[in-house]
Amino acid sequence: MSDIHFDIGSLHAAYESGISVAEVIDTVLARIEAAGDPGIFIHLATKAAMLAEAEALGRFDPVARPLWGIPFAVKDNIDVAGMPTTAACAEFAYTPSTDATVVAKLKAAGALVVGKTNLDQFATGLVGVRTPWPIPRNAIDPELVPGGSSSGSAVATARGIVSFALGTDTAGSGRIPAGLNSIVGLKPTVGALSTTGVVPACRTLDCVSVFALTVDDAYAVFSVATAHDAADPYSRGIAVEPLAVRPPVLNVGIPARADLKFFGDASMQAGFEAALAALEALGARLVEIPFGDFYATADLLYEGAWVAERYAAIRDFFEANEAALHPVTRKIIGGARNLSAADAFRGLYALQACKARLAPVIASVDLFCVPTAPTHYTVDAVLADPIATNSRLGTYTNFVNLLNMCGIAVPTGTRDDGLPMSVTLLAAAGRDGLVASVARDLHAASGLALGATGWPQPSAQPVAALAEDEMIELVVVGAHLSGMPLNGQLKNVGARFCRAARTAPSYRLYELAGQIPPKPGLVRVGSGGAAIEVEVWRLCPDAFGRFVAAIPPPLGIGTIDLGDGTSAKGFLAETASLSAATDISAYGGWRSYVARSNGAQRQLERAPSN
Amino acid sequence: MSDIHFDIGSLHAAYESGISVAEVIDTVLARIEAAGDPGIFIHLATKAAMLAEAEALGRFDPVARPLWGIPFAVKDNIDVAGMPTTAACAEFAYTPSTDATVVAKLKAAGALVVGKTNLDQFATGLVGVRTPWPIPRNAIDPELVPGGSSSGSAVATARGIVSFALGTDTAGSGRIPAGLNSIVGLKPTVGALSTTGVVPACRTLDCVSVFALTVDDAYAVFSVATAHDAADPYSRGIAVEPLAVRPPVLNVGIPARADLKFFGDASMQAGFEAALAALEALGARLVEIPFGDFYATADLLYEGAWVAERYAAIRDFFEANEAALHPVTRKIIGGARNLSAADAFRGLYALQACKARLAPVIASVDLFCVPTAPTHYTVDAVLADPIATNSRLGTYTNFVNLLNMCGIAVPTGTRDDGLPMSVTLLAAAGRDGLVASVARDLHAASGLALGATGWPQPSAQPVAALAEDEMIELVVVGAHLSGMPLNGQLKNVGARFCRAARTAPSYRLYELAGQIPPKPGLVRVGSGGAAIEVEVWRLCPDAFGRFVAAIPPPLGIGTIDLGDGTSAKGFLAETASLSAATDISAYGGWRSYVARSNGAQRQLERAPSN
Repeated sequence: MSDIHFDIGSLHAAYESGISVAEVIDTVLARIEAAGDPGIFIHLATKAAMLAEAEALGRFDPVARPLWGIPFAVKDNIDVAGMPTTAACAEFAYTPSTDATVVAKLKAAGALVVGKTNLDQFATGLVGVRTPWPIPRNAIDPELVPGGSSSGSAVATARGIVSFALGTDTAGSGRIPAGLNSIVGLKPTVGALSTTGVVPACRTLDCVSVFALTVDDAYAVFSVATAHDAADPYSRGIAVEPLAVRPPVLNVGIPARADLKFFGDASMQAGFEAALAALEALGARLVEIPFGDFYATADLLYEGAWVAERYAAIRDFFEANEAALHPVTRKIIGGARNLSAADAFRGLYALQACKARLAPVIASVDLFCVPTAPTHYTVDAVLADPIATNSRLGTYTNFVNLLNMCGIAVPTGTRDDGLPMSVTLLAAAGRDGLVASVARDLHAASGLALGATGWPQPSAQPVAALAEDEMIELVVVGAHLSGMPLNGQLKNVGARFCRAARTAPSYRLYELAGQIPPKPGLVRVGSGGAAIEVEVWRLCPDAFGRFVAAIPPPLGIGTIDLGDGTSAKGFLAETASLSAATDISAYGGWRSYVARSNGAQRQLERAPSN
Repeated sequence: MSDIHFDIGSLHAAYESGISVAEVIDTVLARIEAAGDPGIFIHLATKAAMLAEAEALGRFDPVARPLWGIPFAVKDNIDVAGMPTTAACAEFAYTPSTDATVVAKLKAAGALVVGKTNLDQFATGLVGVRTPWPIPRNAIDPELVPGGSSSGSAVATARGIVSFALGTDTAGSGRIPAGLNSIVGLKPTVGALSTTGVVPACRTLDCVSVFALTVDDAYAVFSVATAHDAADPYSRGIAVEPLAVRPPVLNVGIPARADLKFFGDASMQAGFEAALAALEALGARLVEIPFGDFYATADLLYEGAWVAERYAAIRDFFEANEAALHPVTRKIIGGARNLSAADAFRGLYALQACKARLAPVIASVDLFCVPTAPTHYTVDAVLADPIATNSRLGTYTNFVNLLNMCGIAVPTGTRDDGLPMSVTLLAAAGRDGLVASVARDLHAASGLALGATGWPQPSAQPVAALAEDEMIELVVVGAHLSGMPLNGQLKNVGARFCRAARTAPSYRLYELAGQIPPKPGLVRVGSGGAAIEVEVWRLCPDAFGRFVAAIPPPLGIGTIDLGDGTSAKGFLAETASLSAATDISAYGGWRSYVARSNGAQRQLERAPSN
C-alpha cells in the first residue's frame, strides 16, 4: 500500500510530482481493506465510478480546482447523487438524483466522493454506537467509542482513508468524534454551509461540519463549501478570511475552574490544563467565565423542546416504521410525541433568556476554549448506559449551536493515560476564521501526528481567502500603533492586527502641535517623500465606520500607498494643520520618534486613555 | 368642560400659559363622563391619586420631563402598580406592585396614568368586541367595531380623553383600532419597547404600541419609552432619530394591484388609491410588489403554531378556569392544546422560509404602504361571524410582527361613505424613525381633524432625538451631491439626505485633474478660505464604513467645520493632489461650478455611474 500522505498539501504535492489519481484511488481502497472495519462505510463508490469522476477533472490544476483529486467521505445523512441516503436506517433509505449543495460545491472544486459513512441513526447521539450497522472502531483505541453522530466520517479521516469528510453537527456530532479520533472537527456558524440535501435533525441548529487531518485542510474545505444558498432558509453568507491573521493578544474565555466538569476524569482535567498552557504560550490571556448559563443552555437541547425538531423531521416515517428505528433513537425521538407546541415555545423563551444573558459574556472575549468532551467512554460503558453517557459527552458541545457559536475541535496532545486530548475553540457567529487561525497554531504546538496515521503535521502555510473578504484594512501611523496610548480604541471595536508595513516613499510625518496624547500627522507630498513605518489592522465595516466617525481633526482617513505596492485606508492629516508641526520624517516612524525623543518615557508610561 | 386640546404640544402650551394640572384632570374626568361609554375603561385612577401624582412632578418643566402632566391610558394587559391587571378577564386579575417598564418610563417623564382600558380578552382579536365588559363604542361611528385588541386605548385617545394611550400589538392590535378611530397607531420594532410587566400574547412577537392624536406625539412617547431592558430577553436597543429627516425620493412598496384585497369594499379601495396619490405628492415612488409571500406569512399567525404562544402564556390559568374565558377567546386559544411541538417547529420553518424569500424584497424599498384594514365591519357583523371577520381585518397586519417590521397606522382621509380611511406605513426592523418621518407628512397632508375631537392638527414641529443617535453625518461636496453622478452610491447604502449647508469660511474648493466623473477636492486653508456649499447626509456606521473604504485617492474623510458652528465628517482632498487642480472656490460650490462651466451639460446628463 502506498504511503502517500493525504493531507491536502502533501497529496497535491504528490500529484504535482506525477502520481496518478488511479494510484490515489487504489490507496484509498487499500486503506479501507487494511482498516478491516465494516462499520466505517455504509456505501462505497465503485473504483470505476471514482476513476470516471477523476477523469472528468482533466489535468491537475489546483488553482482552478483547489480540491483537485482529493478523496473525501460523506456522512450518510447528506445526499450524494446516485448513492442511497440511509441516515443509518435501512428502511428510511432513498437514492437522491442530485447532490447536497455542499457536496456539489466540493465536487466542482475537484474532490472525489469515496463513500457514505456510518452514523448514530438520524444523527441522534454523540457516541457512534447507535447504528444497526457494525459500530465503527475508534481509530486510536478500539475500546473507546468512535464518537458520534458522525462516527464513520471521523474514523475514515483519522485512518487516512480520505483527506477529509463531511459530518453534521447539531449537538456536537462534528466535534466529539474529532476529539475521540485525534483529528480536527470544524463546526461552522449555523447557515455558513448549506443544509440543502441534508436529512434534518434540528433544522434550526443543524450544521454541515468538516473533519480533516489539519485545521488548514478543514478551513480550505469550509472556504470552498460556504456560500449563501437561497434554497436553504437558514443559510447565511459568511466572510472567509485568510488564516494566520489574529490579534497579538487573544482574550480566551474558559469555564471558571469551579464550573469545570470532568466526571472524575483526572487525566482529562490535566490534559485540559496542558492545552490552556499551550494557548497561553501562543499569546492567549485566559479569562475564567462562570459557566452556569452555558450549561443551562445545553440542558435545553435534550431536556427541552428541540427533540421535537428531530421528530418533526421524520414524523411520517417514524409513525409508519417505529419498529425500524434503533431502540435508543426510537426512545429519544419518540419522546417528542408528548411535547406540545406550548412546550416548544416555552423552550424558545428559555433559550432567548439564556441568549440575552450570554450575549455580553460572549462579546467580552475573542474566543472560548473548552474540553471537547469531559471524559472518554468505552463502547461497553455506553452500551450499558446509553443515555447518561451520551448526555455527559455533550457537556461542552450542546450549548454551542443553540447560541449560534462556531467552533473547531482540535487535538492538543496525548493524555497521561495515552488517550487523545482535544479542546474546542468557540467564538461568536461569523468568527470562523478567527477560530481557525488560533486552532491551527494550537494544533501545530501539539506536535502530534495526524489522526491515527502516524504522518507528521505538514508545516502550516497561509490559507488563501477564497471568498470576498468583508474586512477593511486600516493603516495606523501614531497613537493607535500596538502599545501606544490609543491602541485600545482599535481593540475595543474588534480590530485585529495584520502586519507591520511601510508606506511608499511619498510621505512626510509630522508631530502635530498641541495634541494630547501626542500624535503624528502623515501627509503625502509630491516629491521628497520618505517611507514611514506603519501598522495595518483589520476591522469590520461597522467598526470602521464608527472608528472613522470618532477621529478628531486635523486627522482623517484617506488612501495610503504602501511600500509593497498595495494601498489601504489610513490616517492622513490636513495640511493646514502643519504650520506649527515638526517634521519628524527622518525618524522613519512614530515609534522610533517616540523612543528617541525626550518625550519617550512619558509617552510609553501613559495608560491607555480611551 | 374645558376645550383644552390634548395633543402634547397644545397641552404643554396650555400649561405654559398657566392652566393647572387639576384643571386638566377635571377635563379628563369630564370627557369620560361626556363620552358616556362604560366600555372604554376597566379601571380608573381616582382624582385624588392623579392629583397626588401630579403634585409629585413639581413645577412645569417639559425639558426635564418631556411628558410633564400629559394624561395617558394603559391597556389592561400592561401593569400599572396598584391597579388590577385583568387582560379583560376578571378571574385572571392580579394587582401588581410595580409598573411595567414602559409605564415606569412614561411616569418618570411626567405622564399621568388615567386608567386601564378595555381590550379583546388576552389581546386575542382585532375587533374589540371579545370582552366581558361592555364593548367600547367606535369614536367615529358607533355602528362600527372599535377595533382591537386595544379597543379602549384607541377610543380614549380618539375622544381626546387622554393625550395618548398604550396598546399592545401582536397581530395588528396597535394598528387596526387606530385605523377605525382615525388616530395614529405606532407599532415599533419588536423589542424596542420593553414587554416586562405585560401579559404575553405571543412573546416572540409582542410589542407595546402607542396610540396618539399625531405622529409627533406617538414618536415622542416612543422616544421616551424605548430602551434596552435586560429583564426582557426580546428587548433590543433602537436608535431614536429626529423626524422630518428623510430622503428626497422615497421608494414605497405597495401590494401589486392584482394582489390587493378589499373584500368588495370599493370605498376602501378608492380611499387607498387616494392615500397613494398623497404619498406620491410627498415624493414617493410607488413600486408594486407581489404580495403572495406576505399573505402566506400572515396565514402562519393563526393557522400555524403561534396560537400556542397564547396558550403557553396562560396555560395554567386556562386549564383551571376554562369557563371563565370569553367563548371566542376560549375557542381560539384552546385550539392550541392540540398542537404538538413538532407543529410549532414546522411553523418556525415555514416562517423562516418566508423570511428568507422576503428579506431581499423588504430591502428593495425604503418602506411599504398598505391599507390598515381591507374593509370595515359593524359590531353586528362581527358578532354574527366572529372568526372570519377578525381574520379578514388582519389581512395587512398579521405578517408584520412575524417579519419583524415596524409600522405606523395613520389617518389619510375620509372615505366616500364618510368612514375613516387609514393606511399603514411599514419598514424593516429599526427604521421606526423613517416610518414616522413619512407618516407625519402624510397625516398633515390629510388635513384631518384629530381623532373624533374636531381639533385641528397642530402645525408639525421637528421632534428632538431623545436617545443617543447612532447615525453618522457625512458632508458631501461634489459628485455625491443630490442629482450628481455618484449620488446613487449614497442612496445604495441607505444614506439619507439631511440638509444643505455651507462650510465655515476656511476652505478652498478645487476641480481635481483627470477625474471621471469630474470631482472637486475640498481643502482647509490657514487663511483666505471661503464658505463652500455642501450637503449633509446621514448613514449608519456599517454603511459609512463601507462607503469610506471605497473612496479612491486623493479623496478621504476628515472633519469639516460648517458655517453654523457644527462639524461633521466629510470629503477632503490630499493637498499633494492639487498641483494640477483648478481653484474654483469663487463659484461657492460644486453645483454652481458645474452649472456655469462649459462641462455643465455633460455632467448633468451623465447617468448615475455606480
